[in-house]
Amino acid sequence: MTDFAATRSQFHLPDGTVYLDGNSLGPMPRAARARLDQTIAAEWGDMLITGWNKAGWMDQPARLGDRIGRLIGAEPGHTVLGDTLSVKVYQALAAALALRPERKVILSDSGNFPSDLYMAQGLIRAMGGTHELRIVAPEEVEAAITYEVAVTMLTEVDYRTGRRHDMPHLTAKAHSVGALALWDLAHSAGAFPVDVSGGKADFAVGCTYKFLNGGPGAPAFIYVAPEHAEVVEPALAGWLGHDAPFAFEPAYRPAPGIARMRVGTPPVLQMAALETALDVWDQVDMPALDEARIALSEQFIAEVAQHAPMLELASPRDPAARGAQVSFRFTEGYAAIQALIARRVIGDFRAPDIMRFGITPLYLSSEDISRAASEIGTVISERLWDTPEYRRKAAVT
Amino acid sequence: MTDFAATRSQFHLPDGTVYLDGNSLGPMPRAARARLDQTIAAEWGDMLITGWNKAGWMDQPARLGDRIGRLIGAEPGHTVLGDTLSVKVYQALAAALALRPERKVILSDSGNFPSDLYMAQGLIRAMGGTHELRIVAPEEVEAAITYEVAVTMLTEVDYRTGRRHDMPHLTAKAHSVGALALWDLAHSAGAFPVDVSGGKADFAVGCTYKFLNGGPGAPAFIYVAPEHAEVVEPALAGWLGHDAPFAFEPAYRPAPGIARMRVGTPPVLQMAALETALDVWDQVDMPALDEARIALSEQFIAEVAQHAPMLELASPRDPAARGAQVSFRFTEGYAAIQALIARRVIGDFRAPDIMRFGITPLYLSSEDISRAASEIGTVISERLWDTPEYRRKAAVT
Repeated sequence: MTDFAATRSQFHLPDGTVYLDGNSLGPMPRAARARLDQTIAAEWGDMLITGWNKAGWMDQPARLGDRIGRLIGAEPGHTVLGDTLSVKVYQALAAALALRPERKVILSDSGNFPSDLYMAQGLIRAMGGTHELRIVAPEEVEAAITYEVAVTMLTEVDYRTGRRHDMPHLTAKAHSVGALALWDLAHSAGAFPVDVSGGKADFAVGCTYKFLNGGPGAPAFIYVAPEHAEVVEPALAGWLGHDAPFAFEPAYRPAPGIARMRVGTPPVLQMAALETALDVWDQVDMPALDEARIALSEQFIAEVAQHAPMLELASPRDPAARGAQVSFRFTEGYAAIQALIARRVIGDFRAPDIMRFGITPLYLSSEDISRAASEIGTVISERLWDTPEYRRKAAVT
Repeated sequence: MTDFAATRSQFHLPDGTVYLDGNSLGPMPRAARARLDQTIAAEWGDMLITGWNKAGWMDQPARLGDRIGRLIGAEPGHTVLGDTLSVKVYQALAAALALRPERKVILSDSGNFPSDLYMAQGLIRAMGGTHELRIVAPEEVEAAITYEVAVTMLTEVDYRTGRRHDMPHLTAKAHSVGALALWDLAHSAGAFPVDVSGGKADFAVGCTYKFLNGGPGAPAFIYVAPEHAEVVEPALAGWLGHDAPFAFEPAYRPAPGIARMRVGTPPVLQMAALETALDVWDQVDMPALDEARIALSEQFIAEVAQHAPMLELASPRDPAARGAQVSFRFTEGYAAIQALIARRVIGDFRAPDIMRFGITPLYLSSEDISRAASEIGTVISERLWDTPEYRRKAAVT
């Protein structure tokens, strides 16, 4: 059983702050400062070019990828780090379309993060406009999975509402019509246990700076299911995904398995910061995390309902239908979030009216949750959001 | 006039080391440790999500891009940072092909870095195989620029020989037949003055971890000429290249100008390290750098010829036809580089027989160059490379 008091103590949070924005940027592991200083001074500074081998920089994307793999239920050797999430979406989508050349529909939903939709639009343009990006409401995805669909491209947890798709169920539906399933785990990895292997996802991608706490600009990850790993031909055919990068051959030959999804030089400093977060994650039992997260979320919903009954819950009431994020609808949500931040309860806002709060036991206690709910009650009931300053800020956002 | 004794003092190099591998990974600016600690602790740690605005993280790609822009002769507001060089090659190439839809040939040369060729091969595959990547010898590029060519894709300086293309001349030739010119400045930016504006390059890309000293895994940059900047439709259409990223619209609308070439979340920690290098670069007068580089390179070539006359110069003898790299051919080059490294003179090796040495006055003095040439002489003439250990290492590379 994970000791969450122990994991909490391994993160730095400013005094008096309740941080409910880990769904956007997770807090700093205390070990990050010393680790980065080591990477900068002892590795870059003193090892110079030899750091690629001596300090293990070259292997980090695979090594750290596998440590994330455990958290998302991936088979070892099938997850690798690199690039940004948007680039990884493009890469996975291009690979999926190449596996279903006779089909021309990418199915997504209106709850997907816009960058995923944009990357699909850009890929379709680059491919000559022969494909269609079909966007339906989240509730209509299942019915829209037809024989036309090459690949479903869905973010498991809706970034506004926290609504969670049933990954195994929708993936099975996709497979039943011969389509592939690409899952964006941006709001899943580190938020709750994911099982890409059991759920039979074909491709999964995600970022590491949200619930995984890898730091601002931390690299993305990509998972390719074993049955596709030796088959996919990368569209982003970079030298570090080549079978023999240092042979400098003129023609691309993909590396075995997931390594072919590497592209260019990995961001060594970002990797070092991420590693300190993974040192904490290595201590975490995922079912225990889930139990504690649900308990904190239920407490939060109940206490907000008590202190601020006028807030409308935008997230599903059923914990099983929800990610690690609890959202409320409030017309003056932007101003209210500003007022809350001034009282050191950090959530965030998504247009047009969503107040978002990320809940994780990794660094949040039951006392933090009570304090947050109570401050939300004060801000709403005493109309502390109703100042010219907060309203002005809302107007320019 | 730049004081290079002053710039040298701003880099950390291990005692007794002569570092001639800045063409692979530049050394650490001394200011990097404190700057990274600030970014980690005071920004990520204490500002948390507000760092995106308060610490200026969101603007870094454009702000630092412009500081690199000065070094490559770009108009202000036309250079932006992000991703890896391979990804930027893909992005620029896709944009160029979309501007010349009726032409199907990408012209490159056998001296290009293989990853550029691989990315072109991947893009062609993704586009349905309708294009051709035509690869000629470096000397044959000019004659091969015909009316079939959509875009020339060349690395200005050959990563093995240091041979330098005549950028303005070849670009003019490309334009004369209606083709576009994409230049990879990996071995140019920070190596010598570049003038993408005067040379009329349509697109330029480069990395920042070589002669720019941005650190291992530092981000790439991309330049788009003003005449194309408002026209190109990005294939990698990420949310941070959207006109209104935080409006979360379902359809992609490119941001004005170079900002559309941004894709995903920028690597904040890498940017911070790069910024400390750019603080040094801001002090550098580029013509003065060039003069000093040529003097050091000429000294190096002359002294190596004196101490190790059996080494064959692989680089052009004319400084104007050469980048900041001086290479020699030697059959036992791999073993010789190992022996040199053991004597703390750091160069590197590229198959099959190239010993590479990067020369820059930014952190190398005339005494360093003499010491390096003398050690090369000792290693070669005393056959110090001829040990079972160094030969064994060569066999596995």
